[in-house]
Amino acid sequence: MRVESPIVVALGGNAISRPDQLGDIPQQFENTRRTARHLADLIESGGQVLITHGNGPQVGHVLRCVELAARELYRLPLEVCGAYTQGGMGYMIAQCLRNELRSRGIDRDVTAVITSVEVDPADPAFQNPTKPIGSFYRKDKAEELAREYGWKLVSIPRQGYRRVVPSPLPKAIVEIELIRRLAQAGELLVVAGGGGIPVVRDAEGNYRGIEAVIDKDRTAGLLAAAVQAATLLIVTNVDRVALNYQQPNERPIERMTTSQAQQYLAQGHFPAGSMGPKIEAAVDFLENSQRPDAAAVICGLEKMIEALERRSGTWIVTDHSPTA
Amino acid sequence: MRVESPIVVALGGNAISRPDQLGDIPQQFENTRRTARHLADLIESGGQVLITHGNGPQVGHVLRCVELAARELYRLPLEVCGAYTQGGMGYMIAQCLRNELRSRGIDRDVTAVITSVEVDPADPAFQNPTKPIGSFYRKDKAEELAREYGWKLVSIPRQGYRRVVPSPLPKAIVEIELIRRLAQAGELLVVAGGGGIPVVRDAEGNYRGIEAVIDKDRTAGLLAAAVQAATLLIVTNVDRVALNYQQPNERPIERMTTSQAQQYLAQGHFPAGSMGPKIEAAVDFLENSQRPDAAAVICGLEKMIEALERRSGTWIVTDHSPTA
Repeated sequence: MRVESPIVVALGGNAISRPDQLGDIPQQFENTRRTARHLADLIESGGQVLITHGNGPQVGHVLRCVELAARELYRLPLEVCGAYTQGGMGYMIAQCLRNELRSRGIDRDVTAVITSVEVDPADPAFQNPTKPIGSFYRKDKAEELAREYGWKLVSIPRQGYRRVVPSPLPKAIVEIELIRRLAQAGELLVVAGGGGIPVVRDAEGNYRGIEAVIDKDRTAGLLAAAVQAATLLIVTNVDRVALNYQQPNERPIERMTTSQAQQYLAQGHFPAGSMGPKIEAAVDFLENSQRPDAAAVICGLEKMIEALERRSGTWIVTDHSPTA
Repeated sequence: MRVESPIVVALGGNAISRPDQLGDIPQQFENTRRTARHLADLIESGGQVLITHGNGPQVGHVLRCVELAARELYRLPLEVCGAYTQGGMGYMIAQCLRNELRSRGIDRDVTAVITSVEVDPADPAFQNPTKPIGSFYRKDKAEELAREYGWKLVSIPRQGYRRVVPSPLPKAIVEIELIRRLAQAGELLVVAGGGGIPVVRDAEGNYRGIEAVIDKDRTAGLLAAAVQAATLLIVTNVDRVALNYQQPNERPIERMTTSQAQQYLAQGHFPAGSMGPKIEAAVDFLENSQRPDAAAVICGLEKMIEALERRSGTWIVTDHSPTA
């Protein structure tokens, strides 16, 4: 297998919370222990992994708790909810992976680092919030929330109204220098959970949080380029990216170049809410990577090693890749 | 001033949440910005600080949110609530300090590390939970919670029933190797918030979380010894420790040895809920420190530099200190 280091592994929601479960903490731990076994396989095979992860169900839970308690208790801004989940999920992932490695006789530290990610206040996403989060509301409550907090809510057929927030592109990882140094020193880290805590720089140059959600795959792409990763491994709930997904003429892709990927994107093969950001993250990583051998691989959780050995997953490489 | 490095700074609750405020996130940020100015003064004076902090009001807020949402949403175990606050408060403290330093032309990273702290499952605290947390309940609700979750609740005169949890002593900081290495390399870190996420090792040697709260000053003492800190600076809401506190014969202490401190402790000068753990943490640090020049200093937030210059605060040193 490909053992150049580091490999940035972006874990999808299903690595920790499964859509068919209530998703409480014992279940999240059970899923994370299973995920840790796959990550440990990768590490045992020589992979120097740097882990990042989504937080959709968890941040939704925090938001809904805060919402239900809002008559009595102060609210948490969205970016602080994200920071909370980085703490909780970072703790869980680091603990499960450390335990799994130790049970195999590998005594290595795994550490979660709280990570902020800078976005551009002029990002068009702030004019056009599209990312749905939190609870569903009835129309009257939705109108009240829009009035009281300036939220934008959209009507979702048969489910009610839901808040939408901006999903700007990540520009820079605030803690990147330390993360890069530690990753290059072989440290196992969990970073930028949930796409990172979104921050902007104000007129004085100070960082401050902003209510937004950053796509975790886009942040993973930025992270992979910043640490000069050989591979960005985007772990999801399908084994391969497909053209004409879920249609009679569906065709899985084993390998494509960034040009092909962009062409398929333009043709609408990869929807915005699901495969689109993963492909964009892959292309973005490859265009910003200084390594001609860089590759982005999209694969299932159970297939990480097979995918690195090119027996599963979808490989995306630059047009000028030695193996293009 | 004393500039040997590192200095472990243990921030009390009032550095972030003030008892006279509602304590919402904008207020916490405002308080933290003020705290960051004092920390930046210390850093500008040459102090290599390693920051830890309490989380009482914040973890109480999470617990109460979860409680109020419990009919509809899954609960978070106490240690996961602690991990959440490490994420949120670590983000806040690191951001405020980074901004303050930058505004002074000091371009340094400040990073929060999620930190677990091992406790002994045989610690007598598990047989005798004493630390009150979360909401107050009426008697019938208290009985229901005791039945349903096995909680221990105690009656508090005129306020109702409240859950009490074990407060075991910290034994080891799980992430200590990385923290020590980074602190020695001059990195500014926020670690072990709220005393650390309490974990035990099970029969197989695996770490797992346990419902408990670790005193943040005791963890700060352990941390200070582990990183071979010159100074443990415990920041609180009084300028000096006092004998006969709040009595007519109150007498502030400028300086004491560990023997004197233990004698005063035995005489009941330092109550368990307030100054007691700070003195115990100081003694514990000094007894475990390998530096003969080590000192623990208890002081007010605004007086950190004066205290290090011996113009404020209470200094605690070993009996065999060169300056004892």
